[in-house]
Amino acid sequence: MSPSSPRRRFISFEGSEACGKTTQIALLKEMLERRGEKVLVTREPGGTPVGETLRILLKSAPEGRGMSPETELLLFTASRAELVRKVILPALDEGKWVLSDRFSDSTLVYQGVARGLSVKTIARVNGVATGGLEPGLTLLFDLDPEVAMLRVRSRALFDRIDQEDAVFFTRVRQGFIDLAAAHPARIKRIDASPAIAEVAVAVEKEVADAFQF
Amino acid sequence: MSPSSPRRRFISFEGSEACGKTTQIALLKEMLERRGEKVLVTREPGGTPVGETLRILLKSAPEGRGMSPETELLLFTASRAELVRKVILPALDEGKWVLSDRFSDSTLVYQGVARGLSVKTIARVNGVATGGLEPGLTLLFDLDPEVAMLRVRSRALFDRIDQEDAVFFTRVRQGFIDLAAAHPARIKRIDASPAIAEVAVAVEKEVADAFQF
Repeated sequence: MSPSSPRRRFISFEGSEACGKTTQIALLKEMLERRGEKVLVTREPGGTPVGETLRILLKSAPEGRGMSPETELLLFTASRAELVRKVILPALDEGKWVLSDRFSDSTLVYQGVARGLSVKTIARVNGVATGGLEPGLTLLFDLDPEVAMLRVRSRALFDRIDQEDAVFFTRVRQGFIDLAAAHPARIKRIDASPAIAEVAVAVEKEVADAFQF
Repeated sequence: MSPSSPRRRFISFEGSEACGKTTQIALLKEMLERRGEKVLVTREPGGTPVGETLRILLKSAPEGRGMSPETELLLFTASRAELVRKVILPALDEGKWVLSDRFSDSTLVYQGVARGLSVKTIARVNGVATGGLEPGLTLLFDLDPEVAMLRVRSRALFDRIDQEDAVFFTRVRQGFIDLAAAHPARIKRIDASPAIAEVAVAVEKEVADAFQF
């Protein structure tokens, strides 16, 4: 995205499991719709018929357990390739806002920091998936790993990633913080520990700043 | 593979649909086993629990229809990444022969020639999937597109790729011929039009030449 072009109205929501992304996406959608905007909400992996099949394979299907890091990378990016071309780009072209629960940054953090793949490897594969598309704004919901794990454990259903340990959560958090430091214009950190309404105020402020409401 | 190192006993079988690969793999397996060798047969996409799920998605599942070329590339290579790490490399390390029904060359031809992706894009993604592994020998079963299509139409079940048209078959054939010309030491062309026993003799001759029986 060149500095002079308007930001594309594509916002990704990133952070650890149980950081409150999904709730905040719903609230931001309502806020934008009250302003008369059209909003499309999606999620990764998933958001397309192919992607939802891959989501099951990545998160809960028994045949997905123990897959190699490279396989996992290629499946996450396959889901993204389909989402970008079938959902996100068409919606942006129709003038809609797109709010996505995870995008490229999750791949960089989870497959890189946590699975040990090189940034170069991930960036190459991810570039094929996105065709160069980046969010106009990324909101990083930052949460202390201890708090995140307590929230995860209180959920009824665990998935594969939820069962990883405290070291994993800590490395993921640091990975996101490092990415935010590397992309300060695009990625804005939000403290995800306060009450929902307070976090929503912080989200609205970042969106208003980025898109000049 | 450096010229001085022994060829890894990994043979890929390539060619259009209905070129007779599967039959020839079974015959070569028998021949090798009569010599006291241990042989593992696999196929792409597939060959692992993850890969077989992806095979259904790529070849027959309704949610896979119309997927973008980039998505298709990433799914074929995801299946390969898993197969290389979970099946092929362990088998080679145990001293087995590995016979694979399709490998990287199919991706270069089908996703490149037929789907319009650049060789550079495919090679980058494929390199992540294979980790650099190449077959010691690739047998290209070459068949006139008209004959291939007649054979395909006589089968009871079509899959997605089988339903493509004559132009597609012709472009695929040319893609494989071009690849063989670019890699003459590794890829050997076999005329797939004669009777099964005659083709099998040609296969045995190429294997004996390559592995110095």
